[in-house]
Amino acid sequence: MNCELISVGTEILTGAILNTNARWLSEELSGMGINVRRQTSVGDNPERLEESLRAALSSADLVILTGGLGPTQDDLTKETTAKVFNRALQLHPEIEKELRAWFSARGYEMTENNLSQAMFPEGCTILPNPNGTAPGMLIESMDRWGCDKAVFLLPGPPGEMKAMFDAQVRPLLASRSGQSVVSHYYQLTGIGESAAEDALMDLVDGQTNPTIATYAKPDQVLVRVTASADTDADAERMLTEYDKIIHERLSDFIFTESRETLLETVGKDLIAGGLNFSAAESCTGGLVCAELAQIPGISASLKAGLVTYSNEMKEKLLGVSHETLERFGAVSPETAREMCENVRRITGTDIGVSVTGIAGPDGATADKPVGLVYTGICSGNGTKIVKNQFFGSRTAVQQRTVNKILQMVREELKYSKR
Amino acid sequence: MNCELISVGTEILTGAILNTNARWLSEELSGMGINVRRQTSVGDNPERLEESLRAALSSADLVILTGGLGPTQDDLTKETTAKVFNRALQLHPEIEKELRAWFSARGYEMTENNLSQAMFPEGCTILPNPNGTAPGMLIESMDRWGCDKAVFLLPGPPGEMKAMFDAQVRPLLASRSGQSVVSHYYQLTGIGESAAEDALMDLVDGQTNPTIATYAKPDQVLVRVTASADTDADAERMLTEYDKIIHERLSDFIFTESRETLLETVGKDLIAGGLNFSAAESCTGGLVCAELAQIPGISASLKAGLVTYSNEMKEKLLGVSHETLERFGAVSPETAREMCENVRRITGTDIGVSVTGIAGPDGATADKPVGLVYTGICSGNGTKIVKNQFFGSRTAVQQRTVNKILQMVREELKYSKR
Repeated sequence: MNCELISVGTEILTGAILNTNARWLSEELSGMGINVRRQTSVGDNPERLEESLRAALSSADLVILTGGLGPTQDDLTKETTAKVFNRALQLHPEIEKELRAWFSARGYEMTENNLSQAMFPEGCTILPNPNGTAPGMLIESMDRWGCDKAVFLLPGPPGEMKAMFDAQVRPLLASRSGQSVVSHYYQLTGIGESAAEDALMDLVDGQTNPTIATYAKPDQVLVRVTASADTDADAERMLTEYDKIIHERLSDFIFTESRETLLETVGKDLIAGGLNFSAAESCTGGLVCAELAQIPGISASLKAGLVTYSNEMKEKLLGVSHETLERFGAVSPETAREMCENVRRITGTDIGVSVTGIAGPDGATADKPVGLVYTGICSGNGTKIVKNQFFGSRTAVQQRTVNKILQMVREELKYSKR
Repeated sequence: MNCELISVGTEILTGAILNTNARWLSEELSGMGINVRRQTSVGDNPERLEESLRAALSSADLVILTGGLGPTQDDLTKETTAKVFNRALQLHPEIEKELRAWFSARGYEMTENNLSQAMFPEGCTILPNPNGTAPGMLIESMDRWGCDKAVFLLPGPPGEMKAMFDAQVRPLLASRSGQSVVSHYYQLTGIGESAAEDALMDLVDGQTNPTIATYAKPDQVLVRVTASADTDADAERMLTEYDKIIHERLSDFIFTESRETLLETVGKDLIAGGLNFSAAESCTGGLVCAELAQIPGISASLKAGLVTYSNEMKEKLLGVSHETLERFGAVSPETAREMCENVRRITGTDIGVSVTGIAGPDGATADKPVGLVYTGICSGNGTKIVKNQFFGSRTAVQQRTVNKILQMVREELKYSKR
């Protein structure tokens, strides 16, 4: 099945908002075996929307429109789609009742303009929107070549759109294709996208069914394998062999087979493992802690963090010895070791980690270039210090450092389990 | 001038990458008085690219293509554009020389395929790419209606694209329009986008020249006023009156008239002011420090941060009194006060800030809802504690808290200057 996406909203064209809907839908549709062939964004302009919708329908079986559904955009998407499909707008009595109830409950008067929200193209399927006011819809047609076309109209706000897609569009598309499409996901860390691709090259080349795709996410790689068959069981069977091969070749790098991020996986594992955690950070300035703090419930594990930018604070707050700092410098394995061992002792936690390095763009010396970062971890199993040389901007170096720490914590948790 | 943007790359259509180029270009072009009327993304597919480029050229004066320029994409964008404009590809001797030098310096053999990188549509202007291998180009034509059309081909990697746009495309477009277009920017914090719009409603309504637009960025609002005139001086004169009105109505909220973020402004002001800074954080988990740590050179100001999630750590590391925590709780103005005063004292810094609150989704009590956050600042001028009630997800509450702290530091710096 071929698909085109059309995003409607002048705020996309002025650059006021970033179009994350198109990316999200593209990834989800790819996982369902549906090719997205074009993404288009148009403003609140009926002529351009009509032109774009006609162009999309000329080659795609499926078009998903997002945005332009609410009364402030004059129901642009609904009216234009009805026009293209040559369908009249009809009053939907049940939605009218709901609308009148909504207005009377609030003591507002309902205007003609408001009533337009209860008008829908004849023969369409209405998709309720539990998180907003504008419902979505599905319009289907047989075109002049006898091909079935399906057009979905979804609201623009990502929260509303995603919930509606997952609950309503996904099952409709699955039943429509008549095929069972199953995707397995493998999330890798500690390996680059091209190395992961190389490892699977023989599977990627000449793939038809199952298909394999790799996605480079910030410091992790997502591998998706998608099989299409008559039944789910058949599709799963087709994936078994691939699953075995991928595990054989990449098991060291797989941190989850869900679609969680490395951060979510490590955060949840820390909580589930009942392990206390603390961090001593220099060049990341607290980012290790701040990222973990995004995980709900992390207060059960994350006890404390010490951000010690200066040598003085490394001595004062962390008790790093003056001699170590003088002799080896702040960016050294010796300092990284004292930082993680001391933060663990001071806070009395099971695991202490440390970061000291040069994030740049300034601060490099002849033997300590920008991107040189020592990362450390200390637990009941001992202390491990890693020397890293990262590349990229200041924020890229900081982000890669956090990822390295997450990898080290993950290894520690695996080791502790054994 | 009307513009369409076309992004080329299969990785956009699979959802593997987010198309930030289209948004960035749209915002920049809007500031130059150029309307973006459509954004299209196509894969590495010559037919669809050709169709999309022809559709764009049928109504737009200006088309900017990004991506599909390198040898791995078979120079898709270059070849397709040459075809649409009916131009032959010609070998460019100077670029060929550079390429040969590049290969021989590395001891590689140069293949026919590599030579294609030195082929360009006849009559095009080559735009050097100082940050990458694939140069950009400008192709201009008189179409059959005698209208001038301009097509820019830019590389896909955002760093290369942005640098090329700023250094080469921007001046070419400015000279092409024959008009002077000047934009003034005002960045606001502490006010929502709709309130900012309301304050400027009379200017926004019926605007033609200058035009006003507001952009909601994470916890800040950007107001852009753009005037078009025969000369820069005339355009500046047209902006003077608007500048006065905007200052009269919104001066309390303006933190910069550059395009910097609030974080960049506060970070630079801290460094320039020679003021030391420390933070004691609970529910933000180190995010205040981590955000400031993104600013190059911040180590001159940011001395230390203490992330104290648990009550135990608030006592142990920050010396918050046991009695305060028992009597008022961790989320209280009293605890926030001790946290910022103590972190300032412990670290010996000029400014100490503190954060304690409930980021959610768990942790709320009957009288302390999710999103309740106390923020504190302490300096030689005294201590100030603010009670905030934020809404949104856990990460949204954390981000809004950081923004509030940045606002408080900004006020402190303004006060210190007086």
